[in-house]
Amino acid sequence: MFTPRTPRIVTARRLQRRKDRDQARRFLAEGPQAVREALAAGVVLELFGTPAGLERHADLAAQAPEVSPVTDEALAALTDTVHPQGLVALCEQVDVPIGEVLAKQPKLIAVLAEIRDPGNAGTVLRTADAAGADAVIFAGDAVDPYNGKCVRASAGSLFHLDVVRASLDVLDLLQNSGLQVLATSGTGEDDVDSLLDGGLLAAPTAWLFGSEAHGLPGELIAAADRRVRVPIYGGAESLNLAAAAAVCLYSSARAQR
Amino acid sequence: MFTPRTPRIVTARRLQRRKDRDQARRFLAEGPQAVREALAAGVVLELFGTPAGLERHADLAAQAPEVSPVTDEALAALTDTVHPQGLVALCEQVDVPIGEVLAKQPKLIAVLAEIRDPGNAGTVLRTADAAGADAVIFAGDAVDPYNGKCVRASAGSLFHLDVVRASLDVLDLLQNSGLQVLATSGTGEDDVDSLLDGGLLAAPTAWLFGSEAHGLPGELIAAADRRVRVPIYGGAESLNLAAAAAVCLYSSARAQR
Repeated sequence: MFTPRTPRIVTARRLQRRKDRDQARRFLAEGPQAVREALAAGVVLELFGTPAGLERHADLAAQAPEVSPVTDEALAALTDTVHPQGLVALCEQVDVPIGEVLAKQPKLIAVLAEIRDPGNAGTVLRTADAAGADAVIFAGDAVDPYNGKCVRASAGSLFHLDVVRASLDVLDLLQNSGLQVLATSGTGEDDVDSLLDGGLLAAPTAWLFGSEAHGLPGELIAAADRRVRVPIYGGAESLNLAAAAAVCLYSSARAQR
Repeated sequence: MFTPRTPRIVTARRLQRRKDRDQARRFLAEGPQAVREALAAGVVLELFGTPAGLERHADLAAQAPEVSPVTDEALAALTDTVHPQGLVALCEQVDVPIGEVLAKQPKLIAVLAEIRDPGNAGTVLRTADAAGADAVIFAGDAVDPYNGKCVRASAGSLFHLDVVRASLDVLDLLQNSGLQVLATSGTGEDDVDSLLDGGLLAAPTAWLFGSEAHGLPGELIAAADRRVRVPIYGGAESLNLAAAAAVCLYSSARAQR
């Protein structure tokens, strides 16, 4: 049984750092839900599990190309959650080049521009998946999509749609491919309901979302085709990112279906 | 200057516990944003601030009925955040009886049924406010709306609309007052887009939201007028609560305005 000092655990554990993930092009997915989705996506290289975890999820263990029983301590060393659920999968990274996405003529894309909070990024990824988006682009200095907290917040959605990592220049490519680019902004000149009423959301669309703390970078706001606000009818100053993204992405889904 | 041992700090600090908040009918609002909204709502009894906090927010200090400078340690004792921003207001609780809300013929209400996560509850409160809801009801064994984390997540919205604490029986009252009660459920027979298309969301509506972990209590699902799902177009199993609530409440706002 692997312990925290077994070389393969020592190596895997380094994947909790972004630099090492980037270099190895691998990451860790923890918990039965993420492991199930990673197996379905065919990206699991090795499944680490405590004896109890492997017994409880024998169906998952049966699907893994390689299963390695580990001690509780070794499992704890691979995760940053307080209550790991006994399973961690070593996975190949799943992101694809932007060209591959554009070749499929996507209709709905979410761009996370410099969103650094992993929980927020993972939640928007999950919402984009639910709304039927084709791809989510982590743009500029955004959080790493393979950050443990982001993977958890995505609740498996990381494996359901195309994930892209790109620089902020990606905007040009999106526009050149015929997508309208809509920047979410509390002070936008259009509101999302008016666009929906006007039939403007039926076109292929990339939504740009910025961080809650700083909003979108000014150059992206300026370069977008439209700046769009979610209307605020009450006394709130703004919506949080997850709520705003849900309203925008579901408005597009409504118009496109 | 008040220290952690000054009797008024010792008394105020007890308000971090629900039992003591319930008894005193008071609570603590921390940080400049919450303090500003509490002052605007006229519910601040006393403003505690570090010298730096009071200087930085002199405009707020000028509006408080009583200002008490406190040491950094005393302020830290009043908050559960890692980086308190130098201000904590002692406030009267703001919730109102359900009868008062119903007398105003509300058009849009959010019911948080047994939602125990304070961050989720506060976020839905904020979203309900943004969508122009008249009231938010904390029903059954829900988190206390004056929980510090809930107050923070609400970003001031606690002070913008009517907040009610009620038992799960409140459903009867809502229905008897002519509100249609819509229970959100991943397996609901209606989807929110179809209701919107069918003109069914223009009527006065109370939306029921349950916890992410357990959903709505079965008796509420059964007693509601309709069970409504947010459509899932992609591979996600579900939406998180904040996203689902945003889609539902904004669909109602769209139909009612």
